[in-house]
Amino acid sequence: MHRVIISGIGVEIPEASIGNDELVASYNAWVEMENPRRVARGEPPLSKSDSAFIVHASGIERRHVHTLDGILDPERMAPRIPLRSDDELSVMAEFGVASASKALADAGLTGADIDMVIMSASHHQRPYPAMAIEIQKAIGSEGAAFDMNLGCSSAAAALHVAFNMVRAGAQRRVLVVTPELITGHLNFRDRQTHFIFGDASVAMVVEQMEEGATRAAGSFEVLDTRSWTQFSNNIRSNFGYLLRAGQDDTSIIAMEGNMITQVGNKVFKEVIQAATQFISEFLADNGLTTSEVRRYWLHQANARMNAMIMKLVLGHEADQDKAPTVLDRLGNTAGAGAVIALKENHEDLKPGDHGLLCAFGAGYSIGAALLRKL
Amino acid sequence: MHRVIISGIGVEIPEASIGNDELVASYNAWVEMENPRRVARGEPPLSKSDSAFIVHASGIERRHVHTLDGILDPERMAPRIPLRSDDELSVMAEFGVASASKALADAGLTGADIDMVIMSASHHQRPYPAMAIEIQKAIGSEGAAFDMNLGCSSAAAALHVAFNMVRAGAQRRVLVVTPELITGHLNFRDRQTHFIFGDASVAMVVEQMEEGATRAAGSFEVLDTRSWTQFSNNIRSNFGYLLRAGQDDTSIIAMEGNMITQVGNKVFKEVIQAATQFISEFLADNGLTTSEVRRYWLHQANARMNAMIMKLVLGHEADQDKAPTVLDRLGNTAGAGAVIALKENHEDLKPGDHGLLCAFGAGYSIGAALLRKL
Repeated sequence: MHRVIISGIGVEIPEASIGNDELVASYNAWVEMENPRRVARGEPPLSKSDSAFIVHASGIERRHVHTLDGILDPERMAPRIPLRSDDELSVMAEFGVASASKALADAGLTGADIDMVIMSASHHQRPYPAMAIEIQKAIGSEGAAFDMNLGCSSAAAALHVAFNMVRAGAQRRVLVVTPELITGHLNFRDRQTHFIFGDASVAMVVEQMEEGATRAAGSFEVLDTRSWTQFSNNIRSNFGYLLRAGQDDTSIIAMEGNMITQVGNKVFKEVIQAATQFISEFLADNGLTTSEVRRYWLHQANARMNAMIMKLVLGHEADQDKAPTVLDRLGNTAGAGAVIALKENHEDLKPGDHGLLCAFGAGYSIGAALLRKL
Repeated sequence: MHRVIISGIGVEIPEASIGNDELVASYNAWVEMENPRRVARGEPPLSKSDSAFIVHASGIERRHVHTLDGILDPERMAPRIPLRSDDELSVMAEFGVASASKALADAGLTGADIDMVIMSASHHQRPYPAMAIEIQKAIGSEGAAFDMNLGCSSAAAALHVAFNMVRAGAQRRVLVVTPELITGHLNFRDRQTHFIFGDASVAMVVEQMEEGATRAAGSFEVLDTRSWTQFSNNIRSNFGYLLRAGQDDTSIIAMEGNMITQVGNKVFKEVIQAATQFISEFLADNGLTTSEVRRYWLHQANARMNAMIMKLVLGHEADQDKAPTVLDRLGNTAGAGAVIALKENHEDLKPGDHGLLCAFGAGYSIGAALLRKL
């Protein structure tokens, strides 16, 4: 079997961003408009949101968004992204290509060097043609492509697949692309989730070490990958085509009630427990103690959750050097978060240093890759 | 690397079915109601549909449907599938479990023997939790699970992934599940596509030959797999969450115009050419001539398309023994079709016989597996 490297990583973070105060002001303005209507309907009024609470609960201070227009308008509270014709590059493919191009440049490759594109993300713009095929065309690649979905573990699970496709020799170079355009699916009128997510797109080139021999220095060898899932409804979206079949009016689908919902306290408790066990077992199976791992690039959903996982994994608290945080300024970028943490925090690692990429989230799902700096 | 077998195949075909005459009568009844409205709006009247045309164009005489209720009602023309609470097994998972259970029984295994579930289908009921994780739970399996999508090549592409995950030793037994509940997404008011699709669910157990040693006799070894894609808008669905961001009213998504559309004549011509080349090259790369393959289990979309592909591949016309048809009574069951053809037409093969499973469709995409009877 082939040895495998990640020869390039690309991160695309949209320029526009929203601080907690702006987001809260928009939410609270909507609440002030909405509450008289609710009271008139005999419904209890909604509570306002609060910046200090958001920082305390999540560690998030700011999030970047693909399209700012519309999100903060209390009359809309959703991004305004103009529809495109079928002949134009679609919005999600474009977002994916932005990170894919950077990953290719980072690897010193072009699209023609790639023989498989996996688009793996929490939400897909459409069922077919697969988003991955549109990205494949846009970067000038040939071979195979398909779409995957595993919530916030989408990139990690795709890396598990890519690693083994390359290891087995079925593909020479796989490009994993994770465009997380999550604000389009976010209910900015839901106090429990309106502050959580931000948009970002990431991509990784996964290739045979032999093919990338001249470019391997300074990159990461993938020593092992693992994926794990266990059903939970605590992070759920029911958006989908079958809603239509359950309605009298089959011409439309309601978004209300069919966007992401989360039972935060249960997720917090259950995912900490599962991730701690997963990380400890995965490292032990690879003959490593948790302290021998130089750096942990964890899923970026919640600062307190990551702190607790690290404390349980290591037996003591971890600093930013051990487990860097990017969610404070980016929010939860779903599948992209751990890869952004990796991209922004790896250049100081020395050859031979081990690092663990570990994502977790909806499903529940956990995915990890054990990396060694070359 | 491990040798790999398909140790079990399960097929679930819903009991309810619709013949061409019934389908056409429903469509034409709607046209008779609709045309006065169109004329009043100054739009050209619609043409009626025709059973003889459907058979001539596609070879389809009948299709089975998950839920008959509502489809033939000219006032509705969509299945009526009651919504379920989050605590109930969802409709698509249930459909997947029906075929998964049969595949497990066929392999002499239970869910506990499976360590990865891939749900790969043209349409997914929701983004998360992944449908595969719900199926994983329902069959009593542990390990990993994720969702994939590659239109009508969904099962074949998942087999490409599963083969290599098992070959590389990352997973011992992968269950590929393809529940194609396509009538929920079909526009029965579109004369170009209303007759094409039927519902079916299939599943395959893909495992290390060593693990399945006692059960290998009579099953198929997977010798090689391949996947290929090239972007085309000729089969497209724009249904998805980002439609919301492109509208003034963000509370609903319109189904009209966002269900499957197909430019049949272009698909016919272009996919025949691509599939012919793909099959010839794939077999040649495996040291086989096209005539050395005992049986071809092709994607079941169109009888004339399959006849043409076989003629170009073989250099002469193929009979039902060489390339069996199931689409006449099932319609196009998307990713499920080729697997149904395999399931229903393999028991007469002798040890050592080669067979080719080959799916093709939206993307464009093609996926194949070269099998050898054990």
